[in-house]
Parts: sequence; structure tokens; C-alpha cells
Amino acid sequence: MANRNRPVAELFGAACDGDRAALARLLSLIERGGDDAREVSRLAHPHSGNAYLVGLTGAPGSGKSTLTSATIAHLRATQTEVAVLAIDPSSPFTGGAILGDRVRMQDHATDPGVFIRSMATRGHLGGLSLATPEAARLLDAVGRPWIIVETVGVGQVEVEIAGKADTTVVVVNPGWGDSVQANKAGLMEIADIFVINKADRKGLDDTRRDLEQMLELSDLAGDAWRPPILPMVATTGEGVAEYWQAVVDHRAAIEASGELARRRQFRVGEELREIVARRLELRARELATGERWNQLQLEVADHRLDPWTAADEMLDGIGG
Amino acid sequence: MANRNRPVAELFGAACDGDRAALARLLSLIERGGDDAREVSRLAHPHSGNAYLVGLTGAPGSGKSTLTSATIAHLRATQTEVAVLAIDPSSPFTGGAILGDRVRMQDHATDPGVFIRSMATRGHLGGLSLATPEAARLLDAVGRPWIIVETVGVGQVEVEIAGKADTTVVVVNPGWGDSVQANKAGLMEIADIFVINKADRKGLDDTRRDLEQMLELSDLAGDAWRPPILPMVATTGEGVAEYWQAVVDHRAAIEASGELARRRQFRVGEELREIVARRLELRARELATGERWNQLQLEVADHRLDPWTAADEMLDGIGG
Repeated sequence: MANRNRPVAELFGAACDGDRAALARLLSLIERGGDDAREVSRLAHPHSGNAYLVGLTGAPGSGKSTLTSATIAHLRATQTEVAVLAIDPSSPFTGGAILGDRVRMQDHATDPGVFIRSMATRGHLGGLSLATPEAARLLDAVGRPWIIVETVGVGQVEVEIAGKADTTVVVVNPGWGDSVQANKAGLMEIADIFVINKADRKGLDDTRRDLEQMLELSDLAGDAWRPPILPMVATTGEGVAEYWQAVVDHRAAIEASGELARRRQFRVGEELREIVARRLELRARELATGERWNQLQLEVADHRLDPWTAADEMLDGIGG
Repeated sequence: MANRNRPVAELFGAACDGDRAALARLLSLIERGGDDAREVSRLAHPHSGNAYLVGLTGAPGSGKSTLTSATIAHLRATQTEVAVLAIDPSSPFTGGAILGDRVRMQDHATDPGVFIRSMATRGHLGGLSLATPEAARLLDAVGRPWIIVETVGVGQVEVEIAGKADTTVVVVNPGWGDSVQANKAGLMEIADIFVINKADRKGLDDTRRDLEQMLELSDLAGDAWRPPILPMVATTGEGVAEYWQAVVDHRAAIEASGELARRRQFRVGEELREIVARRLELRARELATGERWNQLQLEVADHRLDPWTAADEMLDGIGG
């Protein structure tokens, strides 16, 4: 591919002009991290700030991708453009990402108003936490007005990512109340909107009551947005228009109250802290080589030195 | 509780003498992090190195906890002591952990030869990555010969934790092959043993063939351990003895080949790097306050400065 050797600035210009291959290449650079990713960020940042970010999460099998696909169809009926980032749990070993979400969305693959991307990261912990806002910033900068970030609602990193959106949607199913494995507390905290997908299955009323009770227990201020609980059958499209209206309503509410500006400012702070931490981590990896490091590692493995004391000795090297 | 105010060293002594409340308190200190957690680590480290660590992971609902419960029953039939760490996806917002696993294991709650603990972390990313080896080290130091670490097999952090064991077990179910959402590549890489739980359901043979094909594609050296694929019905105990025999066989194989020593050395290195990175992160958080930080954050939020350049400016403060 010619794109492999094109300078980042040229790729960015092409992506802004609607070149999808260039956009895909830039997203790959972001996934990979390093200097090229930083360059993309530098170019994209001044042009970003116009897109609206919807986070979507729920348990595996809850129908997130079907819902996203139905949402795309709904938006395209009014020529609204949309981009989707589907975050796959990444293999820490092979970097393998499962492309199922992408497969299921192939209906939209040839529509120039739709851009769908599966994201994965290779390597170190928390890579997705950095790559996702970078990718969203790029999609924002090239002019996508709506960006949907879809993550699986299990796993510390994945739930955090979905929670760092302008509007966060949590998808559950009837009978969800029975599952003790679902990370309810975490999902309740981040939800601006609940969708009960597969609402034609039995247990809808119980699940709705369950969510309502939990909402009552949670600490909502009197004038705050109260997360609506919306039934949906994503496979037939039933409830999709009402769901999207709720997203639009939530946007209007938080724009009016100043909450949107606060959320975005908070996100910037979190991202900055994350970048600073990552830079320091890289420095730690540089430290973690050589004779001294090997010696300390051996002493810990032999139980002669505890890991914290060993870390202290390493950090002495950078004045810490 | 009197334990709240007891010095860490005294709690550790009591835990070594079999005081379960003291052990539970020490694990809480590890979860919370900070100086007390370091102190626990310093005390435990010289006494650790005797326990064998089994990592167990699989999709939500695959029956990990039932399998663990059946394993406990199997071990207790020969008076073998065992400890279980059940890692719950933690809420990044409330620190709420779901106690389902613990609930399901209440059969064993009154047996002094069994210690079961749900782990969660409050706060920053990757907390579980540090707290889990610390907790395992403590259980090791107080004399538990077998430690089972159970995590949900979705989510970057959680899969990594299960992979950092002496023997790693991946639990799947018949029909798993159909699920495009399961993080197959990652799970394949870390598995030393596959268990097909709920083997009385249809699809057993397909799932076994699916796993065998994937194993053939993967890069096993000629003389390396080949992960066995073991059917089980954990609810009835069928296949549990064979499964545990496979764990014992794997242990013998990697002890003989030197692989166990290599794995443990690798884990020590990873833990050290993680601690060094965490210490640097704490320093980054100290930096991330004050006038200069607020100013940079504002400039990024207003799109006048990109986050990477802002991070560079922050890091200038510590010579980076």
C-alpha cells in the first residue's frame, strides 16, 4: 500500500478530504503508539472538539453490535454521518482482535457516511485507555459529527473507556438481574441511558424494576438527569428511534447545564495524567535493563529482597 | 474489630499461626495499597515461594466458580489445603465488588482448610495487577500450598492476571466456537489446560475439534507441554479428578523441564517493572496539581495545546 510510506501530515490531509484508506492508516498508527501516534494527535487536536462521543457498553451477548448497527441505519435515514470504534479485548500476547463486531456490521461497509473500526492494542497494560481518546480525536478532526465507542462491559479498562464519553449507554437484557457476575455497581455509575435490549424476552418488567430500584438507591441530585430505561428489540429496530431521541435529549440537557463542558474538561485531565504516567512507564522500562536490574531481579526471585525495596533501589537511579 | 488497630507485623504473626481474621485484614490492606501494603509484602516475601499458583479463567457464565468449588471438594477429600482469590471486575467509581463467587462457595466457608477471598481494587488502572501477586504471596507465606486465582476471561487486565500463574486453566463451554466475542487468541496463548465445562450439553465434539485445530495452528515446540482438553460437568463433579490430575502432571512437567523456574523469574521481572511504573505514576499524580497543571489542562481543553506536548511540559519538572 502506498499509504505505508506516506508522511503522517499528508495522510492527515487526505483523511480530512474523505480518504478512508488514509484514515484507516492513521488509526493503525494510533494503535501502534509511539512517535507517529503522537504526530497524529498533534495534527488532529486543533481541529477536534466538534464531534459528540457516545459510549456504549454491556455484557458479552447483550446485543451491543446489533444495537449499533440499528443506530447507524436510523442515523443514515437522515444522512447523518457516524463513526464507530469497537474496542476488542486485546490479547496481551498476540495482539489478536476478534473481528466479529466488524463482520456483523458489514451491511454498512460500503456506505461512505459510515466508518467502522475495530480497535485493539498490542503490548502494555492500559494501551486502550490512551489509544481510544486519540482515535476519537482523529475521527472528530476529520469531521465525523457522531462517534460511538462500543466496549464489552466486563473488565476494568473496558468499562472505564465507555464511561469516558459525552453520553454513556448501558445495554442490559431481561433477566440481567439474575446474573451475579455482571459488574452492576460499575455500570450503574456510568450510565446516562439504560437500554433493555431483547425486550421481547420474558423478564422485562422485573429487569426494569430492578434498574429503577438501583437508581433510587444511587445518589442522584434533585435536578440531575435521571437515566431513562428504554426497552428495545434491536434486531427488528423496535425502540431504536426512542433510544436515539434519549441520546439527543441527554446531549441537550448536559449542554444546557454545563455538565458537558465539565465532562470534557475532566476527560482532558484524565488523559493528561495517563500520558504522563505512560511516559514515566517508558522511562521505567528503560531503567529495567542492564546488570543492576538483573541482579535485583535475581535477589527478588531468590526471596532475599522484597519487590518494593528492589523498586526503591531502581528508582534511586532517577532521583526518586 | 481489634484487628483494625493492630500493627501489621503482629497481624502477620497471627495469620501465620492460622488466625483467619488477621489474614483477611492483611488482604484488605493489600487491596487498599499504600505503605501498609508494602509492609505486608516485606514481611511475607522471605516466607513465600512454596505455594503453587493455579490461574483459572473463562467467559462469564462458563462455570468457573462451580469448577473451583468442585476442585476444593476434591482437594479436601485428601485434607489438602487450598486458598482461592476470586478477582472481580472492579467498579472504577464505587469500588463495589460483586460477591457472587463468594456466595456460591459458602459450602466451604466453615472449613478451616479452605480460604476464599474476593478481591477488588479501588482507584487507578491496573491496581489488580499489583494487588493479586501481593495477595498470592501472602497466602503463600502463611502456608497455603495451593492457591487458585480465578478471573473473568474478558478484559485486558483480568486475562493477564490469570496468565501469570504456574499453571493456567481456561474454561470453555460447548458452543464456545460460535461466540465471536470470546477473546480466543488471548486465551489460547495462556492456556496450559483446557476444560470444557458443561460437557453434557450438545456441541462437545465440535468444541473439542475447534480447540484442537487452534492448538495445531499455534506455535508449540516439539517437546513442549501440549495443553490437554478435558470435558467436565462441574455441577456433578464429573471430570474433576481428571482435571486436577492434569494440573499435577503439568506441575511435574514444568518442574522437571525448568519451565516453572523460568515462569517465576519472568513474573518477578514483570512485577518489578509494574511497581517501578506505579511509583513513577504516583509521582506523576503529585506533579498533576497546582497552577501550572491547571493552566496546561485548560490549554488542552481549549485545543490550543495537544496533550502530548502538554505532558512534555509537565515532565520537564522531573527532568524528563
